[in-house]
Amino acid sequence: MRTLALSRVYPLIEPGPVVLLTTAHRGRANVMAMSWHTMVDFEPPLLACVVSDANFSFRALRATGECVIAIPARRLAAAVVRVGNVSGRKLDKFAASGLTPVPASRVAAPLVAECFANLECRVKDTSLVRRFDLFVPEVLKAWIDPAQKNPKTLHHRGFGRFVVDGPTIEVKSRKP
Amino acid sequence: MRTLALSRVYPLIEPGPVVLLTTAHRGRANVMAMSWHTMVDFEPPLLACVVSDANFSFRALRATGECVIAIPARRLAAAVVRVGNVSGRKLDKFAASGLTPVPASRVAAPLVAECFANLECRVKDTSLVRRFDLFVPEVLKAWIDPAQKNPKTLHHRGFGRFVVDGPTIEVKSRKP
Repeated sequence: MRTLALSRVYPLIEPGPVVLLTTAHRGRANVMAMSWHTMVDFEPPLLACVVSDANFSFRALRATGECVIAIPARRLAAAVVRVGNVSGRKLDKFAASGLTPVPASRVAAPLVAECFANLECRVKDTSLVRRFDLFVPEVLKAWIDPAQKNPKTLHHRGFGRFVVDGPTIEVKSRKP
Repeated sequence: MRTLALSRVYPLIEPGPVVLLTTAHRGRANVMAMSWHTMVDFEPPLLACVVSDANFSFRALRATGECVIAIPARRLAAAVVRVGNVSGRKLDKFAASGLTPVPASRVAAPLVAECFANLECRVKDTSLVRRFDLFVPEVLKAWIDPAQKNPKTLHHRGFGRFVVDGPTIEVKSRKP
């Protein structure tokens, strides 16, 4: 993986791919699947995401304020669903899913080796956590895997159904 | 258009399509393009969305607390970009884009006739508007156009580039 300029992060998140969110807390790494996220600002890249307080990751995210948001391509669909169907409360989900945690540089939460992009994040605002489980992570450092060319991302439709990226179309536009 | 149960709203928004946001304020309807949104809760459906205070729609949304979120299919890509490239400050963007405003039932903001889904919304929380331009709209009523079968949505990659929905894949899952 090589580093990616922070200004290049928003086109990764803006189209709405399912992502993985990793945490590390009390010596344990965990990973969950997430589709409830949006960009909030371009640079430094800010996101908002919803992590339910019913999820084991909620406690780690709230306690540490750190996470990695990793973007899987189509070939990881089965691992995404495995990660999304079990809790890390009693299980090592990395081992169970076959995904490989790799040390990050700015946060304790691990990168996911198999994902084509990894975003190291620190939570910047927690004022809507209590009411809506909504966190605002800032991307501190971004990684891209140059070996994965034009990865097709997954868009979650519920109950294991995903729309895969189709063709890209272009309409002349002046705006980002 | 026919009404859609509120429990069926989240699979429309969760995959991250570009949407149109309409407002009505001081006798003027307006429409903008938006990709910075996420689900926040299933039912009643709650969303979070970012509407920059540089947008003309920001003032209308903050003043009225009402909007419609309309989802365009692929054939509306050119209209989406037209709407995204100009401000409603001096222009009737419905007339300029060829989109047709239709009265909604619960809010003053209009539905968009050409969109396959329309969500009438009232803003439920504004506590992050000042810091991040982030609104939390609740969906009060949802509409679907049964004449548009399996619409392909658009996912914005920046500067007029969109990924169009490709094939749907399914992996056995126990969870929504």
